[in-house]
Amino acid sequence: MIRVGIVGGTGYTGVELLRLLLPHPEVEIAYVSSRGEAGERVELLFPNLRGLTDLCFSTPSIEELCQLDAVFFATPHGVAMEMAPQLLAAGVRVIDLSADFRLKDQEQFHHWYGLGHTCPDLLPTAAYGLPELFRERIRGSTLVANPGCYPTAVTLGLAPLLSAGWIAPEGIIADCKSGVSGAGRSARVGLILPESADNVAAYGVSGHRHRPEIEATLSEIGGKNIELQFTPHLMPMIRGIHATLYARLQAPRADAELQELFAERYREEPFVDLLPFGSHPSTRSVRGANTCRLAIHQPRPGQVVVLSTIDNLVKGAAGQAVQNLNLLFGWPETLGLQQIALTP
Amino acid sequence: MIRVGIVGGTGYTGVELLRLLLPHPEVEIAYVSSRGEAGERVELLFPNLRGLTDLCFSTPSIEELCQLDAVFFATPHGVAMEMAPQLLAAGVRVIDLSADFRLKDQEQFHHWYGLGHTCPDLLPTAAYGLPELFRERIRGSTLVANPGCYPTAVTLGLAPLLSAGWIAPEGIIADCKSGVSGAGRSARVGLILPESADNVAAYGVSGHRHRPEIEATLSEIGGKNIELQFTPHLMPMIRGIHATLYARLQAPRADAELQELFAERYREEPFVDLLPFGSHPSTRSVRGANTCRLAIHQPRPGQVVVLSTIDNLVKGAAGQAVQNLNLLFGWPETLGLQQIALTP
Amino acid sequence: MIRVGIVGGTGYTGVELLRLLLPHPEVEIAYVSSRGEAGERVELLFPNLRGLTDLCFSTPSIEELCQLDAVFFATPHGVAMEMAPQLLAAGVRVIDLSADFRLKDQEQFHHWYGLGHTCPDLLPTAAYGLPELFRERIRGSTLVANPGCYPTAVTLGLAPLLSAGWIAPEGIIADCKSGVSGAGRSARVGLILPESADNVAAYGVSGHRHRPEIEATLSEIGGKNIELQFTPHLMPMIRGIHATLYARLQAPRADAELQELFAERYREEPFVDLLPFGSHPSTRSVRGANTCRLAIHQPRPGQVVVLSTIDNLVKGAAGQAVQNLNLLFGWPETLGLQQIALTP
Amino acid sequence: MIRVGIVGGTGYTGVELLRLLLPHPEVEIAYVSSRGEAGERVELLFPNLRGLTDLCFSTPSIEELCQLDAVFFATPHGVAMEMAPQLLAAGVRVIDLSADFRLKDQEQFHHWYGLGHTCPDLLPTAAYGLPELFRERIRGSTLVANPGCYPTAVTLGLAPLLSAGWIAPEGIIADCKSGVSGAGRSARVGLILPESADNVAAYGVSGHRHRPEIEATLSEIGGKNIELQFTPHLMPMIRGIHATLYARLQAPRADAELQELFAERYREEPFVDLLPFGSHPSTRSVRGANTCRLAIHQPRPGQVVVLSTIDNLVKGAAGQAVQNLNLLFGWPETLGLQQIALTP
Repeated sequence: MIRVGIVGGTGYTGVELLRLLLPHPEVEIAYVSSRGEAGERVELLFPNLRGLTDLCFSTPSIEELCQLDAVFFATPHGVAMEMAPQLLAAGVRVIDLSADFRLKDQEQFHHWYGLGHTCPDLLPTAAYGLPELFRERIRGSTLVANPGCYPTAVTLGLAPLLSAGWIAPEGIIADCKSGVSGAGRSARVGLILPESADNVAAYGVSGHRHRPEIEATLSEIGGKNIELQFTPHLMPMIRGIHATLYARLQAPRADAELQELFAERYREEPFVDLLPFGSHPSTRSVRGANTCRLAIHQPRPGQVVVLSTIDNLVKGAAGQAVQNLNLLFGWPETLGLQQIALTP
Repeated sequence: MIRVGIVGGTGYTGVELLRLLLPHPEVEIAYVSSRGEAGERVELLFPNLRGLTDLCFSTPSIEELCQLDAVFFATPHGVAMEMAPQLLAAGVRVIDLSADFRLKDQEQFHHWYGLGHTCPDLLPTAAYGLPELFRERIRGSTLVANPGCYPTAVTLGLAPLLSAGWIAPEGIIADCKSGVSGAGRSARVGLILPESADNVAAYGVSGHRHRPEIEATLSEIGGKNIELQFTPHLMPMIRGIHATLYARLQAPRADAELQELFAERYREEPFVDLLPFGSHPSTRSVRGANTCRLAIHQPRPGQVVVLSTIDNLVKGAAGQAVQNLNLLFGWPETLGLQQIALTP
Repeated sequence: MIRVGIVGGTGYTGVELLRLLLPHPEVEIAYVSSRGEAGERVELLFPNLRGLTDLCFSTPSIEELCQLDAVFFATPHGVAMEMAPQLLAAGVRVIDLSADFRLKDQEQFHHWYGLGHTCPDLLPTAAYGLPELFRERIRGSTLVANPGCYPTAVTLGLAPLLSAGWIAPEGIIADCKSGVSGAGRSARVGLILPESADNVAAYGVSGHRHRPEIEATLSEIGGKNIELQFTPHLMPMIRGIHATLYARLQAPRADAELQELFAERYREEPFVDLLPFGSHPSTRSVRGANTCRLAIHQPRPGQVVVLSTIDNLVKGAAGQAVQNLNLLFGWPETLGLQQIALTP
Repeated sequence: MIRVGIVGGTGYTGVELLRLLLPHPEVEIAYVSSRGEAGERVELLFPNLRGLTDLCFSTPSIEELCQLDAVFFATPHGVAMEMAPQLLAAGVRVIDLSADFRLKDQEQFHHWYGLGHTCPDLLPTAAYGLPELFRERIRGSTLVANPGCYPTAVTLGLAPLLSAGWIAPEGIIADCKSGVSGAGRSARVGLILPESADNVAAYGVSGHRHRPEIEATLSEIGGKNIELQFTPHLMPMIRGIHATLYARLQAPRADAELQELFAERYREEPFVDLLPFGSHPSTRSVRGANTCRLAIHQPRPGQVVVLSTIDNLVKGAAGQAVQNLNLLFGWPETLGLQQIALTP
């Protein structure tokens, strides 16, 4: 039994961490912070947790956090990098669900997030927390940069093709559809139901912070520079990401070869589920579960279409963070993560 | 052709007034104000209006408003009562879609809205803008208090029973369901799609500002004091109000008598549509239209259930305001109000 | 470890039973039947279950069912009463989620369901499966009539008031709002998203099958004949029931007395959660969980309003059935039922 | 004033034709057919039309249709081609909203629709009813093949680039998102709200009937063979199509050049609205209106992304059909088509 803390517990990533960690058999949640709600009982803000916890939100205190075994940051960018050095020095493992340690390149970080990095020396030590690709690095690390929701869906969908060198590095397109919870639990007119229900629109088409993160990972996997066209869209739904991925084969491949490439790559992965060739996964089938569900198509020879679905708050955030926690502490990777997707 | 202005044009009531008034054959919209968006083009905020108007939002100016023929207030309470006296003195007709002139009783106004009334002398001159009940008063007035959305649905559903004296004055219940647009175009966490979609909850059960407004009208119609249990609920939909109204008959009545009472009462009304006895109107069937659609049930002898549906932004706000404008200027009451409800 | 079967596994109640029973520590699902899908793998119909079960749907076979320890009926009415006698004779415990054993009165059953009852002698032996009211009867029974979703929400909300004799038996109103999954997984035009989204309508106002079921239970609790006005409405959401319950006190009671009555009644109940007086529970806060969340209001002296929320597929169907299973086999009542509601 | 008929009036295209044609100043709807609902009053099926029409559905009768001035087919494929020859011989203008006359190539038609064409001699005479591209052909025709909803959004978004020869003919991708009404008013489990709400999935990725239709038009415009990757997705909304279109420039172009190309091409078009460069149109902004709203992006040099939005039932079906009617009869193209999009 370890004692963990959550910094920034009032957003959707925070409440999802609480949902997953409260019943986790090896974890005691000792601390949840929130500047805005300090002193308030957690169950008052999140009535789904009534009767399950006596926790109150605290003002973040580095002293208290330093006494824990692990700390999750479910904060806007800029917070984790302020506190991580002290925590790590005190022997606390850090899992950052924000963007602070995702981009290794300080200038890119500054460009996309508008902040100078305050602990660039830690950047090389941070493991990118996508276990299906970087499991050993995560196991050997004390600081995990938990991936963004879009990067998780896109990277898992393209990795087998890129690591095999089967697709052309240019012209890859990720057309992504996200539920509104991806925009966070924040009071913005554009997110209220009368604006966002019964409506679809793209956003950030000319540039979005998740693109450099995806490109960095794909370039590392592919062993060459990958430029991606990444187009996010807001869907009138609560949870879920559907990534529709387009790439061109470098040489002809039969449908069965494509399927076998993915099947081989993900056979042992508990949280990646490959559907039969030509299937259409739905975000519904992963709602509430830590699963990435994939399907492959080749509509015309040489044109590959990969459909990749996750729950943005689980495999795209809190679930993946718990998966990383399990790795850091040497527990079975699926511990506490076997919730079945809610259908309907 | 008259020239009208809209004070507070950035909310849902404002944009709905624009949708209805832009094609109105007797109206030129000369002025739309908004403190927050002053200087901005209207079509930038509301792209559905692109190409239909060159209007920009202005800072509210009493001088400019005084040169118009009519002014609509689509503002929070407290604004109209500040400006109405000067406008009326200048001969401008005023249609207030806020609450400032709905309650004749100053103390009630203060209790429910937390403000002292600044022009109580105008209160007796304001006509309550429910044309189906107070058509002649509206025609003879220069100041119209446009009813709230809930009061419109509830009052039209109960009026025939009360004016006939058929139901008991005590124990009347109005269980009301509203789309989220009823809460306005405002940035509040509780209204964002991830909170309000796939969810139903009541609010204000212990007391809501629309209750005294409904009770005042019903008491006037019924000729005695009516106390209503009014329970509003937030529905995961954009537009629409469904009022489910419960009352007890004072004496036995056949189903056909009940139906005939309503049929007789609303036969000539262009905007009230009585369905066959025992039907179930849907909010969908009035979406975008200035219609109140009603049906009557008597599940057990003596127990009457009236189902009343409107679009909260049309018959519950902007459409009714245009209907009142038509009355004020002696035009056909349906002018500019013949939009067909959008189905599906 | 017992072996259970599900008859009728392709509806929403069936898939919810699978979601709850697959991880249940004392249960092995040995059998799932469906006439229409016989031979098909369960995970093909319900991809959320991929990798969790090898089950295929079978044609219902009484021989195979007789070898199990318990059988759930998630079928339309009329099926369970055909098979239950043989199963009970073979020592199998039966939990019927359909209506076959809910109404003790054969004539009422015939009136509302259009069928003659085929085993009326079993009716007196069936326990009505609302554990909060009839726990001991259920423990001592081999045949459980699992309540309907509306009756669960309404009865739990009114029971304390009726058993205390505090409210008048006449004039009780249950205005209920249900998600569309309550209508089942059936191909009907009225249920498709373009019809049922962004829409609210009542249905069955003049009479609904769940009314006599509720009235029978309430009359038993209250010790006198209770006539209820029950009004169901279809909401544009997937899961959830919100019951708004209206009753009149027989004698004056302080708010705190009302609250204490409920608090006392449900203090030891793991699946009933009473909110502070004057709160507004949301269906969201119980989505996916076996919880009934309640709040009490007294808007005017003597007028009680109870707000009662459940997930229609969990506490309103499959979750309650598992709770009954736990009782029948003497396990802790919460076994396998500690899922946390999915928020957002 | 002409007399028109609608064959197949019970689907969403049918009711949308009724919504648009009932107030059309030059049209009298003389006839609406439906095999399934023959004898039924139209307003019973579509309560939004109550009080606006006395029409009843009829069994389709070729004799009666031959006496009209124009006939719309809002039927599944296979119906219009059976009846069109006689109607045209009788001098009736035919606007077919189904697929019967969209593909000039009989073999393609047979491949995608599984039917032999029964009047292939008429195929060359049918004008493809996309007025922005083929206005003169439509004016000179008596038989109009009204485009599909996806083809309308995609073709308007790509036409300027292809007719200018600016983009490469290979590698064009149309990632399209559609509301559920695009699947028709049909009783299918996959379309009911509990399945399709809060969910996103692709369908027909390996091949969809609208792809050859789009490719034929684009190839004609581009003067060379165009192969498109077309990926449709089902969105949890009622109406709307959002097409996200990807293409590569053959030579470098400044953003302003791209914008000017589209601005020039659509300057005089009443129903195409080009947003400022880099904007994000929403389906909401065209809901209920006969508008295609477009925006252009160039996220990286040479990579063009066009966002194209329509209401699938208006500009994607019934509205465009009325636009074609206006052309056939020499009326102003916007006659009866100036509904403002419903916001919110």
